[in-house]
Amino acid sequence: MNQKKAVVLLSGGIDSATAAAIAIDRGFELSALVFLYGQKHRVEIEAAKRLIAFFKIKSHALIEIPTGIFSSALTDASRGVPRDREPGGDIPDTYVPARNILFLSYALAFAESSGAVSIFIGATAVDYSGYPDCRPEFFRAFQEMADLGTKAGTSGKGIRIETPLISLSKAGIIRAGTRLGVDYSLTHSCYDPGPDGTACGSCDSCRIRKKGFLEAGVADPTRYRSS
Amino acid sequence: MNQKKAVVLLSGGIDSATAAAIAIDRGFELSALVFLYGQKHRVEIEAAKRLIAFFKIKSHALIEIPTGIFSSALTDASRGVPRDREPGGDIPDTYVPARNILFLSYALAFAESSGAVSIFIGATAVDYSGYPDCRPEFFRAFQEMADLGTKAGTSGKGIRIETPLISLSKAGIIRAGTRLGVDYSLTHSCYDPGPDGTACGSCDSCRIRKKGFLEAGVADPTRYRSS
Repeated sequence: MNQKKAVVLLSGGIDSATAAAIAIDRGFELSALVFLYGQKHRVEIEAAKRLIAFFKIKSHALIEIPTGIFSSALTDASRGVPRDREPGGDIPDTYVPARNILFLSYALAFAESSGAVSIFIGATAVDYSGYPDCRPEFFRAFQEMADLGTKAGTSGKGIRIETPLISLSKAGIIRAGTRLGVDYSLTHSCYDPGPDGTACGSCDSCRIRKKGFLEAGVADPTRYRSS
Repeated sequence: MNQKKAVVLLSGGIDSATAAAIAIDRGFELSALVFLYGQKHRVEIEAAKRLIAFFKIKSHALIEIPTGIFSSALTDASRGVPRDREPGGDIPDTYVPARNILFLSYALAFAESSGAVSIFIGATAVDYSGYPDCRPEFFRAFQEMADLGTKAGTSGKGIRIETPLISLSKAGIIRAGTRLGVDYSLTHSCYDPGPDGTACGSCDSCRIRKKGFLEAGVADPTRYRSS
């Protein structure tokens, strides 16, 4: 019997690495989509490539979103990445308009075209930046829309959007991935890394990552430039 | 007061040209997104460019979807474009997986990034090829998903997906556009044009177009190679 196929959205961070490990553990043959969208932390692409090698993913594509589609503190040179922000409150300036919607749509098109039955995305709604496109109700709505808008969906064999981390804390994600043998030294999280790839330690993404390793009781392999 | 902004998906065909004319008539300042996605009828891109000039749309982008994302009779050299097909029945082989989902997602990201309040798409569910992503229930689900997944949506100022042609026949669309002064000689519909851009006259898209002009009582400006 052929191995069932899935598409994973791979950013190079902890969450997508863990989602990939879970998909592999569940027996899927993976294709990975990696996106270059003008992010200042494009060093994460190198992390995604390391993870593709680590997981031995044969089918992978780097997709470039043209400059000017997104406007965000993560992409615009004129806007700084917020630091030392307390969690909660408003949607932060690092929000990238419709990013998960666009990435999932690519995954859906590719999945239906290539016969994959599931899409794995490492979104979490626990230790996260408050982005609307990381919430369970968004993923439910995306699933419904995908089922109505694709041939696979209307034939009752809709492509499943899988969010295995949605209810896990960052520590829970790190523990789950560690059990599955994920090498987190290959991952990158910082929104505003130094030229040598070291992490700033104070953006939302660094703060959430640090706290996650601490709470998980797992040694943090990140190279921080402020420590 | 600043003119309100909208994004239009412009393919170069009759429907998107008419949708653009309706948006302009409603007072919107338009940005146009045009997609190169491996379609055999890439000559439609030239039609889209002619329409951008015709409508004097200053903000426009050509977005390239990488080869291999879509698999369809419209994109794959190994699959022929069906001819002389009777309308109705199964979703035809020209279905492109999640195409409108991906195009609308691009429009949504760009709209939210650029402050546009609406997206115009020239989909119709009357004289059409039976694609699932052209049906009203799909657009309703996309709207709901977009409202949940964007900052604009969660703040109650969600970007509106406008489908002004959804209940119009092809003849009705041509009549509406003719009233608004659309020059349909600039548009292209054929899925399988000759090297000189002439239309085949027998693919789904040509058949629907021909019938539309006939029923609308408007002279058909198309150059058919079989006539």
